[in-house]
Amino acid sequence: MTKVLKGIAASDGIAVAKAYLLVQPDLTFQEKKVDDLEKELKRLDDAVADSKAELEIIKEKAVENLGADEAAVFEAHLTILADPEFFGNIKNEIKNDHVNAEKALQDVADQFIKIFENMTDNHYMQERAGDIRDVCKRVMAHLLGVKLPNPALINEKVVIVAHDLTPSDTAQLDRKYVKGFITDIGGRTSHSAIMSRTLEIPAVVGSNSATTEIKDGQEIVLDGIAGEALVDPSETEVSEYLKKADDFAKQKAEWKRLKTAASVTADGQKVIIGANIGTPKDVKGANDNGAEAVGLFRSEFLYMDSSELPTEDEQFEAYKQAVEGMNGKQVVVRTMDIGGDKELSYLPLPKEMNPFLGFRAIRISLKRQDIFRTQLRALLRASHYGKLAIMFPMIATVKEFKAAKAIYEEERAKLIKAGVSVADDIEVGMMMEIPAAAMIADKLAKYSDFFSIGTNDLIQYSMAADRGNERVSYLYQPYNPSLLRLIKKVIDSSHAEGKWTGMCGEMAGDQVAVPLLLGLGLDEFSMSATSILKTRSLMKKLDTAQMKQLAAKAVTDCETTEEVVELVKKVVKY
Amino acid sequence: MTKVLKGIAASDGIAVAKAYLLVQPDLTFQEKKVDDLEKELKRLDDAVADSKAELEIIKEKAVENLGADEAAVFEAHLTILADPEFFGNIKNEIKNDHVNAEKALQDVADQFIKIFENMTDNHYMQERAGDIRDVCKRVMAHLLGVKLPNPALINEKVVIVAHDLTPSDTAQLDRKYVKGFITDIGGRTSHSAIMSRTLEIPAVVGSNSATTEIKDGQEIVLDGIAGEALVDPSETEVSEYLKKADDFAKQKAEWKRLKTAASVTADGQKVIIGANIGTPKDVKGANDNGAEAVGLFRSEFLYMDSSELPTEDEQFEAYKQAVEGMNGKQVVVRTMDIGGDKELSYLPLPKEMNPFLGFRAIRISLKRQDIFRTQLRALLRASHYGKLAIMFPMIATVKEFKAAKAIYEEERAKLIKAGVSVADDIEVGMMMEIPAAAMIADKLAKYSDFFSIGTNDLIQYSMAADRGNERVSYLYQPYNPSLLRLIKKVIDSSHAEGKWTGMCGEMAGDQVAVPLLLGLGLDEFSMSATSILKTRSLMKKLDTAQMKQLAAKAVTDCETTEEVVELVKKVVKY
Repeated sequence: MTKVLKGIAASDGIAVAKAYLLVQPDLTFQEKKVDDLEKELKRLDDAVADSKAELEIIKEKAVENLGADEAAVFEAHLTILADPEFFGNIKNEIKNDHVNAEKALQDVADQFIKIFENMTDNHYMQERAGDIRDVCKRVMAHLLGVKLPNPALINEKVVIVAHDLTPSDTAQLDRKYVKGFITDIGGRTSHSAIMSRTLEIPAVVGSNSATTEIKDGQEIVLDGIAGEALVDPSETEVSEYLKKADDFAKQKAEWKRLKTAASVTADGQKVIIGANIGTPKDVKGANDNGAEAVGLFRSEFLYMDSSELPTEDEQFEAYKQAVEGMNGKQVVVRTMDIGGDKELSYLPLPKEMNPFLGFRAIRISLKRQDIFRTQLRALLRASHYGKLAIMFPMIATVKEFKAAKAIYEEERAKLIKAGVSVADDIEVGMMMEIPAAAMIADKLAKYSDFFSIGTNDLIQYSMAADRGNERVSYLYQPYNPSLLRLIKKVIDSSHAEGKWTGMCGEMAGDQVAVPLLLGLGLDEFSMSATSILKTRSLMKKLDTAQMKQLAAKAVTDCETTEEVVELVKKVVKY
Repeated sequence: MTKVLKGIAASDGIAVAKAYLLVQPDLTFQEKKVDDLEKELKRLDDAVADSKAELEIIKEKAVENLGADEAAVFEAHLTILADPEFFGNIKNEIKNDHVNAEKALQDVADQFIKIFENMTDNHYMQERAGDIRDVCKRVMAHLLGVKLPNPALINEKVVIVAHDLTPSDTAQLDRKYVKGFITDIGGRTSHSAIMSRTLEIPAVVGSNSATTEIKDGQEIVLDGIAGEALVDPSETEVSEYLKKADDFAKQKAEWKRLKTAASVTADGQKVIIGANIGTPKDVKGANDNGAEAVGLFRSEFLYMDSSELPTEDEQFEAYKQAVEGMNGKQVVVRTMDIGGDKELSYLPLPKEMNPFLGFRAIRISLKRQDIFRTQLRALLRASHYGKLAIMFPMIATVKEFKAAKAIYEEERAKLIKAGVSVADDIEVGMMMEIPAAAMIADKLAKYSDFFSIGTNDLIQYSMAADRGNERVSYLYQPYNPSLLRLIKKVIDSSHAEGKWTGMCGEMAGDQVAVPLLLGLGLDEFSMSATSILKTRSLMKKLDTAQMKQLAAKAVTDCETTEEVVELVKKVVKY
């Protein structure tokens, strides 16, 4: 019987392919005495040659996908593989001590690693210890005849099976071969899930047991729509899913036609559907998917991809590139949201017992005004080159918003006085992600030009449930009436002051949530670029008046998240 | 000029006395060669004699305050002081090596400690190593002529100055001599602050620098009402504060007269003022302070003061004792609130990144139904002996409340079927401490017999600010309109269903909050027993209609916590 693994649907689509296990193999070995020295030396030579061939491929792929800088590390590995001293020592040990190649490799590698690690006054040489470790691992794998998996080495259609995927793993995935992936851990908002949507690869995450239940090479049907995987499917199942994949492809083609269309409901009501981006490079994907705005530009990458605080000019360039790329469409930049689970090596923060409830985002900016003012100046300067808006993350009180806004006004006045060109229509708003702020949205709406609801945080604080903690994940309920009521309060408050409300959490692109949000009067829906066209297509089917009724019923009558979902599914025809 | 230290007012009252620094002294010493051996041996004998005298006093006080069991450790110390082998060795080293007594003491102590520590098969002997270390420390202090401070040694009126006070420090405080204390760290809800209120000793916590700014023996005026300390006050200041202390004493005497009075407002409206208790032993303090109910009985002590899960009978006895002690007044028992910052050695929970947003309280109870059902059975059985109510902590959704209530009903039915006497008027309610729950209080009020607002948690989740994290403590704002609105929603929702709402967080006894809470319609105020009479006295001054107006204004018009405080202070005459 076909085994079915259930997980969380992370990215739409169907894949049918062989499993590729991206799991670190066991590299322990037995120390042995050897008599046939010739044979042992040849085993070593073969392992080195195989490693070299592999590294050449990995290097080439890395240059292609990551650029020459990132690929340099593999060049360094190749240099070590060609080092006569290193391998001469290994061979000498085999010959002198009659030990197997594994033992000699380990011994010599350990010696070299120690020497490099002790060069404490030379940071560059110290880092070479890591390179030797990596090379030794690869040669060892070949000696032991086990596979050291690497995304770059995949040369047939596969579904990747992994415990989790790191950013560097995903960066190397070749969409020509990688047809989907399934992981043990993670949720809809984990890094690998977000990446899968960006890459438009079907994915299932949080399956708990994929790496133990699936064997390398087994045939897999991956259903990223339902969030499940079939292991060793029957022929009937395969053809059934190939049909489903075909239907999905047709639907996607349909969606593509909406790229240049406006986002309009069945009754002709217009809404804005925007993209969330992480770097200026993501602007291309936003435009390719027909984004009408950037509803969230996370400025953290500037701080996290750097070894020191980014300068005003570096930031200016990045913001300018983004607003220019969007050609007059609004780009909402969120000021630095560091802290919580995002750390900076050069800005050490005290260890906190509950970092999500700690010193982060605007709380840091208001304290470290040097950092904040630099960012604001860069933003103000970039405003001249397109339509830029600014928002502050983690605002809890009126006092905080006023303090942040006052600093903004100071920097603005200084720049204008210095003759710098600054746009005169910059909207300055705030994220709505703290329950206390939502409770006084009417007061905040007097000062804030707009709100952007950050549902990922708003849900976790409202429910007092860490969104990364699997034991309380059952409380991460975007459709719970409690949350819908908070959202309604925020939207209504903004409208009462003639302002607008957007949403930039995962919920904005969620197909069950969209009808409710439309009914609650949300003005802008900002999401992963790849969800835009699907949402625009859904919007065409929705009647505003009917969705208003639906949302009112959910907010007033429903007691649980289950009741809300049932209600939506009864009313909306997907 | 008088130096003024500002801190957090932790416990009312004024004290004028000398500073007693409860700070570990520096015990490092210089190794020296000595010629006058006689003199050196006498130095040692004197130090031993002084140590012995001190330990006798400490032991005696410990027997008095902590009981014979706890005092046994000091008996052990005295035995070591009388050990001829130990001190014989020290004297021999002085004589043979001509070293000073400090060096010889350290060497011999180290040898003995090592021997005891190596007795790995004898746990009792291993623990003696710690005793030797303590004794050596005391003798060393006398050799060096420095003071090893100990609360038991205080024999004159003092204000204790410490970095923080541990539970064992506070247990030894003699109220005859200790007139107040000031600490570097802590907040209004820290252990030492709560203890100071229980002991009715004026206290200022979180001064940051008391131990560095104040010298041992300096005169101190401690103002636990304003939260400050005057170092080396002038004569005028001293007499001014003595007058203030006198006024406060008169006020307290006045309050005492309200012990048997009902809690009534100026216009004759009755409210309930209850006590929060931690163990059945606290019932006495509740009654002594005229509590009209126990609004919160934290059942955690049963789990935390134990090395294994408490049995049903152990729990039954504790609950029975509490309800019997309250003589028919209601006792609201909160079911197990473990997790977050409260750990159990015998119930290991996975390490969490944000424990306050994690697996705790009812979330554990619903998963570990064995533990939950045992507690419910004990509570049901105890209900026969008085007026008991039950509430569930950390309820976030209707589904959770219904699940917990269903388990309660099952256990109730089983007990009744088995012929056990169970009260038929047990109210089953819930804590209101999660924003999402407050947002759907109208729905929850259909199922819950009452609500008890837990402000400590409700504030930290609403504001997304860990209440133990000093960097975000500025966001712990009980008077913020956002929080008042949530509270109003909860109270109104309960009244609409004919139910009642209490509050059992620190806020219920806060003199600025009480007028607002009365105005919002709160039915029961539950607090530290020592705050009851003060609050009852305040209640007599408040007019309900006026407080309703005040609260409405705070909820509708105010934007910030500062505005609310200003408003209350303008209207209420304290």
